[in-house]
Amino acid sequence: MEFNFADRMSDLKGSAIREIFKVIAQPDIISFAGGVPSPDTYPVDALNEISQRLLVGNAAAYLNYGVTNGYPPLIEILKERLTKQGVVKDSDEMMITTGGQQGIDLAAKSILNKGDGLVCENPSFIGALNSFRTYEAELFGVTLQNDGLDVDEFKKTIKENKNIKIAYIIPTFQNPGGVTTSLEKRKKILEICKANGIIIIEDNPYGELRFKGEDVPTIKSLDTDGDTVIYVGSLSKVLSPGMRIGFVVANSKIIGKMEILKQVNDVHTNQFAQALAYEWLKNYDFEEHLEKARLLYKHKCELMLKTMDETFPEFVTYTRPEGGLFILCTINKEGIDSAEVVKACIDKKVAFVPGFTFMVDMTKTSNMFRLNYSTMSDEKIVEGIKILAGVLKTL
Amino acid sequence: MEFNFADRMSDLKGSAIREIFKVIAQPDIISFAGGVPSPDTYPVDALNEISQRLLVGNAAAYLNYGVTNGYPPLIEILKERLTKQGVVKDSDEMMITTGGQQGIDLAAKSILNKGDGLVCENPSFIGALNSFRTYEAELFGVTLQNDGLDVDEFKKTIKENKNIKIAYIIPTFQNPGGVTTSLEKRKKILEICKANGIIIIEDNPYGELRFKGEDVPTIKSLDTDGDTVIYVGSLSKVLSPGMRIGFVVANSKIIGKMEILKQVNDVHTNQFAQALAYEWLKNYDFEEHLEKARLLYKHKCELMLKTMDETFPEFVTYTRPEGGLFILCTINKEGIDSAEVVKACIDKKVAFVPGFTFMVDMTKTSNMFRLNYSTMSDEKIVEGIKILAGVLKTL
Repeated sequence: MEFNFADRMSDLKGSAIREIFKVIAQPDIISFAGGVPSPDTYPVDALNEISQRLLVGNAAAYLNYGVTNGYPPLIEILKERLTKQGVVKDSDEMMITTGGQQGIDLAAKSILNKGDGLVCENPSFIGALNSFRTYEAELFGVTLQNDGLDVDEFKKTIKENKNIKIAYIIPTFQNPGGVTTSLEKRKKILEICKANGIIIIEDNPYGELRFKGEDVPTIKSLDTDGDTVIYVGSLSKVLSPGMRIGFVVANSKIIGKMEILKQVNDVHTNQFAQALAYEWLKNYDFEEHLEKARLLYKHKCELMLKTMDETFPEFVTYTRPEGGLFILCTINKEGIDSAEVVKACIDKKVAFVPGFTFMVDMTKTSNMFRLNYSTMSDEKIVEGIKILAGVLKTL
Repeated sequence: MEFNFADRMSDLKGSAIREIFKVIAQPDIISFAGGVPSPDTYPVDALNEISQRLLVGNAAAYLNYGVTNGYPPLIEILKERLTKQGVVKDSDEMMITTGGQQGIDLAAKSILNKGDGLVCENPSFIGALNSFRTYEAELFGVTLQNDGLDVDEFKKTIKENKNIKIAYIIPTFQNPGGVTTSLEKRKKILEICKANGIIIIEDNPYGELRFKGEDVPTIKSLDTDGDTVIYVGSLSKVLSPGMRIGFVVANSKIIGKMEILKQVNDVHTNQFAQALAYEWLKNYDFEEHLEKARLLYKHKCELMLKTMDETFPEFVTYTRPEGGLFILCTINKEGIDSAEVVKACIDKKVAFVPGFTFMVDMTKTSNMFRLNYSTMSDEKIVEGIKILAGVLKTL
């Protein structure tokens, strides 16, 4: 049978990252490809203790249907934390989502008609870009610099494309860039979006993972007199990605629309997982947990950068993240396609992600690639970077 | 700020069922409103035992990201069961979804363009209808009879509306109807859809809950020489709804498209929940568990019907389900709006769902209402039905 799929499917290919994930399932591979926290940080014993405590009686509160916007105690405890961070205002509501991805997806679904424009950093997170593609949005990429996107280009793009309704920004430890948008640029992005009636989706899954430098206020917290920002957060990088718990904070009217969409998407997020997360945040030391993770990632990031400094050829430059999980590298040589470099490295059992997958226009080749430093052992980081350096030197 | 939402949001209101759920949160209410299994059936001790066993070491297999199409052992064990039921063919694949709802939602998203037509039983499951509305589909309802939809009307609707791409059918213990489509009608529905290149979404969350009569083959299993059917199943009604585990079975090309959509929707379904479900299906007696649930629902359904037979006025008729969770009632009197009856009963602390919420055209009043019998105690079933009968007699 010939299937007649929706038009939205025609631009969507299986993610190149997913193909790479099939490769990295091999046990002997050194993988810098994922975007996952170190499994060493998972609070397994704590979750075991909590499970034993919750799964008694008929446990209906954890095994039954829950309300769409989320398990109330989890919302309360997260709101408390985010209020201290200046993210939650009185006119805001929070909704728990099935990972940050669902927050991005439903925010876009609530706003975008076919043909509407969306502006974002270029490169940016492929999961978000592909979600926007499923709503047949027109994507506009703005060059990513070491202190956030190019604001002049951002302004010009918005001026020239009146269909733009959303700006999708990952201001802190950007994926794949690893860079953080400066306070000054955050203020300008907010001001430009406000002036043009554009909603900002601020995606901040890595914000709690700063291991160097000073915190920069979220764009959401800068928006004290308006409702321009939909803030998307997640427990995936700080508790467990497999639990699929994220959250969105925005004006209650926006959350109201997203709640209707969530109800027809997955009804509510796994109730037991929400209860586990709540009990863990309430009864265990989240700050201590974060501090351990930060120290671990600081060590691994520094080790990777040091090895890169020692071994990479001069024509390869890279970002120096102050937190998060990624380093973005650029091969400053004519006619280089980083996808070819990835292929050559996979043959030598080292995997990472080529830059084209993160671009608004995925049909062009890219001279960039993304490295993750959070999951491999110290030995494998050094070994893998040396192998990669060897391949780069042949270019 | 005035928000400029997507066009798809304009037809969507918060579900009336959700409003009722706020009412039934009151502890002294007798609720026939939900569509939930009895919490007495949740295998709490088993899940506790499994949790303790899984959450050891770094438990990365359960807490880390998983593959989008699902936890492989869970897919295998479900496939084995569904192959025996004739649901899975060689050309098929299975994908685990975050509840059956996500299966319905992503199936629709993969196929429907704005303005495409979808035909369904009328009344039907509001969660599905609202999902289809978010893709701006044109919905066509076909009268539901005691043995499934009116086939002549179905045929005529399809003939007259060339934009129809999907038929959404709940053939077994329909929601809200409680009725089961006859084998003859299943064959005709399949034949008509095949002849017109229409994909059937067969939604079967209640199929394992037959407590009377003989199993009727699923439409999916009748489609031996084609790929017309996307089969949506769920563990929500047979294990735990709060766990949000469903599954879809369809031709691998369809599953491939849905997998891309799932990746940008929630990446994958909660990994720990999938592992819990797998271990439970593997190590505990699913058949015995189902048999207990069936006996419980049989008893409660018979008790409710008996009380209705004894107390309802003659002008109220109702379906007599052989499984599932619902009885659909019709008030055969001119000018009756069942929403008014629901309001009057809520004042007397009895809640259930008015018929208009299940209709393709929700703007018209309905003379129908839905009763659920699975969750209340025997005493409350009798007490609630008597109160409802009292209100009905005043009409």
